[in-house]
Amino acid sequence: MEDRGLLIKSAQDQLLEKAKKDGVETAWDRKEAMKTPCGFGSAGVCCRNCAMGPCRVSPVPGKGVERGICGATADVIVARNFARMCAAGSAAHSDHGRSLVLYLENASRDGQIQIRDEKKLMAVANKYSIETCGRDVYDVAHDIADAALNEFGKPRGNLIFSKALPKKRRELWDKLGVTPRSIDRDIVSVMHSTHIGCSGDAKNLYDMAMRASLADGWGGSYIATEISDILFKTPSPVQTEANLGVLEDNQVNIILHGHEPSLSESIVAAAEDPELIALAKAEGADGINVCGMCCTGNEITMRHGIKMAGNFLQQELAVVTGAVEALIVDVQCIMPALARLSKSYHTKFITTSPKAHITDSTFIEFEEDRPYDSAKEIIREAILNYKNRNRDNVLIPNEKCEALVGFSTEAIVDGLDKVVNSQIDPMQTVKPLADVILSGTIRGAAAIVGCNNPKNPHDTCHVEMMKYLIAHDVIIIVTGCAAHAAAKAGLMLPEAKELAGPGLKTVCSLLGIPPVLHQGSCVDISRNLQLAGELANHLNVDISDLPVVGAAPEWMSEKAVAIGTYVVGSGIDAWLGIVPPVTGSPFAMDYLLNKMEEDYGAKFYVETDPQKAAEQMLERIEAKRKKINI
Amino acid sequence: MEDRGLLIKSAQDQLLEKAKKDGVETAWDRKEAMKTPCGFGSAGVCCRNCAMGPCRVSPVPGKGVERGICGATADVIVARNFARMCAAGSAAHSDHGRSLVLYLENASRDGQIQIRDEKKLMAVANKYSIETCGRDVYDVAHDIADAALNEFGKPRGNLIFSKALPKKRRELWDKLGVTPRSIDRDIVSVMHSTHIGCSGDAKNLYDMAMRASLADGWGGSYIATEISDILFKTPSPVQTEANLGVLEDNQVNIILHGHEPSLSESIVAAAEDPELIALAKAEGADGINVCGMCCTGNEITMRHGIKMAGNFLQQELAVVTGAVEALIVDVQCIMPALARLSKSYHTKFITTSPKAHITDSTFIEFEEDRPYDSAKEIIREAILNYKNRNRDNVLIPNEKCEALVGFSTEAIVDGLDKVVNSQIDPMQTVKPLADVILSGTIRGAAAIVGCNNPKNPHDTCHVEMMKYLIAHDVIIIVTGCAAHAAAKAGLMLPEAKELAGPGLKTVCSLLGIPPVLHQGSCVDISRNLQLAGELANHLNVDISDLPVVGAAPEWMSEKAVAIGTYVVGSGIDAWLGIVPPVTGSPFAMDYLLNKMEEDYGAKFYVETDPQKAAEQMLERIEAKRKKINI
Repeated sequence: MEDRGLLIKSAQDQLLEKAKKDGVETAWDRKEAMKTPCGFGSAGVCCRNCAMGPCRVSPVPGKGVERGICGATADVIVARNFARMCAAGSAAHSDHGRSLVLYLENASRDGQIQIRDEKKLMAVANKYSIETCGRDVYDVAHDIADAALNEFGKPRGNLIFSKALPKKRRELWDKLGVTPRSIDRDIVSVMHSTHIGCSGDAKNLYDMAMRASLADGWGGSYIATEISDILFKTPSPVQTEANLGVLEDNQVNIILHGHEPSLSESIVAAAEDPELIALAKAEGADGINVCGMCCTGNEITMRHGIKMAGNFLQQELAVVTGAVEALIVDVQCIMPALARLSKSYHTKFITTSPKAHITDSTFIEFEEDRPYDSAKEIIREAILNYKNRNRDNVLIPNEKCEALVGFSTEAIVDGLDKVVNSQIDPMQTVKPLADVILSGTIRGAAAIVGCNNPKNPHDTCHVEMMKYLIAHDVIIIVTGCAAHAAAKAGLMLPEAKELAGPGLKTVCSLLGIPPVLHQGSCVDISRNLQLAGELANHLNVDISDLPVVGAAPEWMSEKAVAIGTYVVGSGIDAWLGIVPPVTGSPFAMDYLLNKMEEDYGAKFYVETDPQKAAEQMLERIEAKRKKINI
Repeated sequence: MEDRGLLIKSAQDQLLEKAKKDGVETAWDRKEAMKTPCGFGSAGVCCRNCAMGPCRVSPVPGKGVERGICGATADVIVARNFARMCAAGSAAHSDHGRSLVLYLENASRDGQIQIRDEKKLMAVANKYSIETCGRDVYDVAHDIADAALNEFGKPRGNLIFSKALPKKRRELWDKLGVTPRSIDRDIVSVMHSTHIGCSGDAKNLYDMAMRASLADGWGGSYIATEISDILFKTPSPVQTEANLGVLEDNQVNIILHGHEPSLSESIVAAAEDPELIALAKAEGADGINVCGMCCTGNEITMRHGIKMAGNFLQQELAVVTGAVEALIVDVQCIMPALARLSKSYHTKFITTSPKAHITDSTFIEFEEDRPYDSAKEIIREAILNYKNRNRDNVLIPNEKCEALVGFSTEAIVDGLDKVVNSQIDPMQTVKPLADVILSGTIRGAAAIVGCNNPKNPHDTCHVEMMKYLIAHDVIIIVTGCAAHAAAKAGLMLPEAKELAGPGLKTVCSLLGIPPVLHQGSCVDISRNLQLAGELANHLNVDISDLPVVGAAPEWMSEKAVAIGTYVVGSGIDAWLGIVPPVTGSPFAMDYLLNKMEEDYGAKFYVETDPQKAAEQMLERIEAKRKKINI
């Protein structure tokens, strides 16, 4: 097991070498070319919010220019920039959620969009107080779509929250004035208040950033997960394989990359169409090999065991293999570099979303009103491209690793319940999980999430942090690019329990689960929230009382900033492994890394060394245990 | 008349000298201290949309780093930044509009919020197809509030547009895919698509920026104007005075600054309360002198003739006079510098909006459910501060200028109608205006709008441009800070007709109007749209066929970027006197300044010399006249 880290590096190194030989560039090359990043931007003290500037104030208090032309201090500039990151991140997740709701709106019993999880449908109907008794599930589904759409734009009141949100937490938000109203409005509010001459108070701006972020975590992202589960089923444990070795020599390799599962689910289904398989064979291939990348990869592996081709920093490497017929994408985290890169290979880079055209890609709109047919048309492009593969320039690295994925909150609760066979509550309950935490068999839980970032060695921070924590009996839940890192490192194999401490090992053995549980894509951090909330409710405490922590050791996107913010706002400490652009503000440093705890019972930590971060996380878990006397 | 420019400079110079003597800084000092602005930021090629960077690509094609770490080119980076400026500007205006709708929702016959313009109410009810026959105006008003709120967040369909929007223009938008859906959603869409790895196509991004901007111009801003008129009455011509000389030696001087007229209207009303006047007298003052600044100044002068204390770059100078007891603000364009500056004088800097706290200000929330009482409490603070004025350090410049303001579209049409006494249509109509344009008596119209910017000499660009154009028989409509510039320069006096060409002079004489017509605050550019739309409809052409141009010679805010974009999208060429941060993108330069015309029949011009810009505007007006054979 210990060698897997080496293996990963070696796969990456092979392809980076090939890229060099092929004369193409990757993100690492561009990182290198960029040289030292701008110090003002890195410290967050660059302001481009009006045309009097751009202004750059000194990141060192008392030294140099202290105010922008409007008079904004470093504290205000940093807070405005931070708030806009939260707004953009929240917008991305939430607009993804909205797309799925609009997709659900088109569901019908005899159409191409169908309901695959009636149990989840009923649970979500209950959240929105929608009558279900004796009703057709499609009627219920359409009412859910209406109710969920309303959450984005309703003019009055507050979001309707999952019952997993503890009452104490909600009361705290109300007291702080950060309870989300409607998703779009809270994002727009941030954009308004960060406009020149609007909010000039850092705390006011962090509050608004929090409200928009909570609208993401407990709103847009939560809705994205719920609706995806209704449409495509709630994930349950399933076997898969991870890393670029999942590409096949003699098949049409299709990589699905992006975020919204509507496209990817349709491609997965349509790739099994006998007509297309026959076409692939007619073109000389043995079949069609659909693999997933980044969050789209997480979505389809969680539900179908589709192989995981890799995470954010592997998207270019996939093309460099020379073995990918089509890289099919929708929205978010898709490097525009793929357009030029794919021209150096035979890979068709197919964009599908009106929200995300990319210059020099092949745009084939995914038609959501006829998803299966539309998916077939897109796949056909890939198949017809098989003949163009240049077999003299193919390198499929032979690394791949098996993994057990699909641990939705429902699956975890269900799995625990079955084994422990709780007599107290005939319904599924988090009691068994609470019990193993209370007893100390498991010391706590850590959500390790987020992206890759070429500032840190690829995947290493994720994996080191996970290994340390499981060795200390902390169970890990992962989403996003972190999940791919874990899968590739073998940490999602039940056998990885050997790397776990004695308590966690026992639990893993008993349940047949790995010590690192895959909860899905980045919107699925809502599953982490749900689990934490249910645990808190069960123990009659607030989330901030739980021995639960979060970390994004290699984050890079604005979504990650929104996530970190709503995680802290939900009462869970968040460790960042990349320094956020806030260091130029004394207020930010004091508030985010310290005083935020007075508001939310949780705060941010910035620690670029994953080992040190893991030690801090463990320390914090033990402190929380002590606080609630367990 | 010709000396007014000198007088303005002298007032400003006096106060800048005083500021120096008093040891306080102003925006000009901070501009000086900022030195050369960042070249990357100025060219728009700095990207902080994720944490892999910040990235800076070369603003010169083919030289230096050409791609960000994700692969985004200068074209994509500039377009993303531009789109986010539009999103922020649209958010600011629209959230202002939303506040007014929520204010209208609280209107009642016996409450503190009342309907002052039933005629406008009926017109707006008609737009939303709301039944009015035999109904109580307050019931109609609440239905309007519902309908207007719906425009911000409705999940389906498109915005409901004013009937002033020409059918051809709407069809064009539909064809281009830029017809706004709902205001908040279109803003959020921009934030999503500009997230890392989403849209990587400049044209796609400009389209989304356009959709969000049109949602501002024909949505949020339009609503703001309509609801303000219903609540506070549609402006009609009224006499006022402008410049800092409007402050009074022996009165409690209150300056209202910001944007949403709900606060300022209440302060204006409450300042006449006998109880407060008595209190002011008891404190040794002769009375209460309420003056307006920036857009708030425009709102209250348009409706009540409240004196105009000045525009954006005068807000600090007002405090430097030493004669202002309270500077009362709500949202937007309020320099956070005022907090520190006001500490050097006796001025109370009172913030009132939860959307815009400013550190070190006095925060007294304006309570919208009891506006009159709340306003009284705020005014009381000002009165009680009168005794603290340091009479040894007061300098009220003796410059002020009379002006005739309040030319809403309704007032223009009404005024023209009365004089010309059109026999064709007994209803108000734009026919007389169309006739004087068709006949060539007036060559065309120019909307001169926007901010101040210390990059350009204060007000000079506005005034020079206006003088050139009126001398060439182009009638000017102004809003925002441009309106203050015109008023201070005497261009809003009927006597200013002497500066006009022979045709415009004749029209001004006939109607008793100045050659520069005040249309209001920056959201009131909706009035410009309405006028242009009605004119186009009357002539059965599209707006882009009209001899009408727009300019923002001293713009600085993101709102101005959204405005420029929706103005061009509406078919009106827009001249920018400050170079926008797009010069690093060949695509942007070609699209915005050239190809945009193929889409919208209008485009941007960038010309920092106001005289040259005015010449170009005139040329374009003549070309448009030729095109429609007039």
